[in-house]
Amino acid sequence: MGKLILETKRNLFKPANRIERTPSSVTREILKVIDTPGMISFAGGLPDDSLFPIQEFSEIFADSISKKGPKLFQYSDTQGHSELRAWIAGRYYPNSSPDEILLTAGSQQALDILARYFIEDGSNILLERPSYLGAIQVFSSYNPFFLGIDYEEEGPDPEKIKYILEHSSEDLKFFYTIPDFQNPSGRSYSIQNREIISKYFYDHKIPILEDTAYRELSFENHIPISLCELGPEHTISIGTFSKTLAPGLRVGWIRAPKSIVKDLIVQKQSIDLHSPSINQELVFQFVSSSKYEKHLSLIRETYKRKSDFTFNCLKERFEDSIPLHSPQGGLFYWIEFPKEIDTDILFKKCLEKGLAAVPGSSFFINEAERNRLRWNFSNATKEETKLGAERLFNVYKEIRSEK
Amino acid sequence: MGKLILETKRNLFKPANRIERTPSSVTREILKVIDTPGMISFAGGLPDDSLFPIQEFSEIFADSISKKGPKLFQYSDTQGHSELRAWIAGRYYPNSSPDEILLTAGSQQALDILARYFIEDGSNILLERPSYLGAIQVFSSYNPFFLGIDYEEEGPDPEKIKYILEHSSEDLKFFYTIPDFQNPSGRSYSIQNREIISKYFYDHKIPILEDTAYRELSFENHIPISLCELGPEHTISIGTFSKTLAPGLRVGWIRAPKSIVKDLIVQKQSIDLHSPSINQELVFQFVSSSKYEKHLSLIRETYKRKSDFTFNCLKERFEDSIPLHSPQGGLFYWIEFPKEIDTDILFKKCLEKGLAAVPGSSFFINEAERNRLRWNFSNATKEETKLGAERLFNVYKEIRSEK
Repeated sequence: MGKLILETKRNLFKPANRIERTPSSVTREILKVIDTPGMISFAGGLPDDSLFPIQEFSEIFADSISKKGPKLFQYSDTQGHSELRAWIAGRYYPNSSPDEILLTAGSQQALDILARYFIEDGSNILLERPSYLGAIQVFSSYNPFFLGIDYEEEGPDPEKIKYILEHSSEDLKFFYTIPDFQNPSGRSYSIQNREIISKYFYDHKIPILEDTAYRELSFENHIPISLCELGPEHTISIGTFSKTLAPGLRVGWIRAPKSIVKDLIVQKQSIDLHSPSINQELVFQFVSSSKYEKHLSLIRETYKRKSDFTFNCLKERFEDSIPLHSPQGGLFYWIEFPKEIDTDILFKKCLEKGLAAVPGSSFFINEAERNRLRWNFSNATKEETKLGAERLFNVYKEIRSEK
Repeated sequence: MGKLILETKRNLFKPANRIERTPSSVTREILKVIDTPGMISFAGGLPDDSLFPIQEFSEIFADSISKKGPKLFQYSDTQGHSELRAWIAGRYYPNSSPDEILLTAGSQQALDILARYFIEDGSNILLERPSYLGAIQVFSSYNPFFLGIDYEEEGPDPEKIKYILEHSSEDLKFFYTIPDFQNPSGRSYSIQNREIISKYFYDHKIPILEDTAYRELSFENHIPISLCELGPEHTISIGTFSKTLAPGLRVGWIRAPKSIVKDLIVQKQSIDLHSPSINQELVFQFVSSSKYEKHLSLIRETYKRKSDFTFNCLKERFEDSIPLHSPQGGLFYWIEFPKEIDTDILFKKCLEKGLAAVPGSSFFINEAERNRLRWNFSNATKEETKLGAERLFNVYKEIRSEK
């Protein structure tokens, strides 16, 4: 009887092929197990929620309601909150106008809208190796052909980029890149690589999709020029308030040439009409207040401190058995184990010991580097970090001793 | 120089074919002109925003923050707020569990997710004539083949449904329907039609997508059984709090068999990770409070009064020159003009006279009924309704006199 019902359902609902193509995100799967008692998780890309300015949100909510009234909860413009768009243009895109900004439900929706815009069955797209797994996931459902370029210490090697651009049998639809404190590698482009790579794509008339999600999270004071500033004509930029303010608000954006934004607005119209105005209002009132710069400084200092502490804990356990590079910003350590360690196996053993982090294989489309582990340091306490490093080292020792 | 830049851009950005397939929504275009001074609009599907419980939202926001803290703004579960899912299952889907509910960014995102799930290039789907234009818009971008069934006074004719089911050369992917106070026609299925039509689709193993957006807005006290209650195995149901609470919160849902929901969650993961928790919390705390039933009664009474007033204003002007049917719920009049009146032309003349409503042609995929006008009565004041009816009659007279 149970079987009969199942078969009926299978006949009844006939999903499109894309349903099989969309991989379930590993981190989202991990999020489900992190509530297991005793589990310590370094798996998500979670900002430190103790830093969220929730009291200020509460004050803004009450204040905006009394000033703007029920219109804040009515249907509203698809492109989004005009003052927030002006603020984003002013801060991140000199010489761009608010018309060139489309507000989205976080940067994940920005990726989906751009995938819809660009990708046909079999379109060539170029991604970094490794790359953000949420991007790999959403691009996959549009069935592109993935090309990869290694993300080295200072970004992709321009000569390899040049080779790809000159030797692709068909035009690339775009190059998706995270030049600042990349997820998962924590690496950034050198200024020189930014300039050369931007120029190569410009010369070949191939658009760049620059994801700036971690750009504000620099442990130093200076942030190098963005690809979008270097080449606004051929670069589409994606941003988010998830890391600087709070991910649960789901407010991100796309900056693109105006003619493109016009088409993207129609897509967004069709997929959710518009994003909630009140969430955009909360973001706008906070980021445009005098409190925002202080808030950013606090986040940067906190994450630098947490990154340093993580380094010390890992160093104390592993000593010189693995190389350790501390990131200059962002949320991640990209831990490198000896070549013979398969982190898919290590990951499973870690889960048994009450430790979650993401195996490197999740971040590659084709041939994966199997000896990497992504470690999110921004949302753990000192005690958790210390204990986490200890558990990781114990599992590592155990696997080594089995070899 | 300007031309050169344009051409460069055209070469640079190569959109997928779906970009040309997605029509821009007429109502969204109209929304842009309704701020013209002197314009009265009956074009949107706008609830009366003076009824939004904004003070309660403000209290809930403060209260939830103090009780639940920063987690409300952290990344959260893709499927959505578990208590709200339980509430929805309990209220609308007897015998369903919260696992069968996926929360979405309004019902528009529900439509997009289901279109992603079902539609391939050239898939057959069946829609009512007329149908909701936001559904037509989002389905179109997935390039289906549209079949149509007339929405008559008491819903589609079951014999015609039977004929289509027996004579389609290929299986239908689904039938999309709004059985209660349909947008735009204001019509509903009789109980008999619900039963027969549900059975026909069950027998042919074709899924029904039932859109319940207006279901709670009945001017009578009783609401007839839903298609989903009649056939939960082959019916996927879509709902929203946009009409009962506030559209700007962007909270809607899908109810589907659990095995389908699992796939839909992966799709939602890939398109925006999850919807904002705080918005779901605002909805949950309000609908689960003792205030909700009173609030619904107030909405129903207000809309009934507004519908009656609209009837009187139109009757006073038009007398018996056009047939007038008042709806029994929902937000719309579906005004019928004599066959020779083309409402695309009438619409343009109305805009010139400071009156916006939506021409019937927007709600049809193929052969349109060109003598219809959709008139949203829920968000206009008495004065606006009176003046709107007067302007409409004047334009109508003018067109008639030209014939």
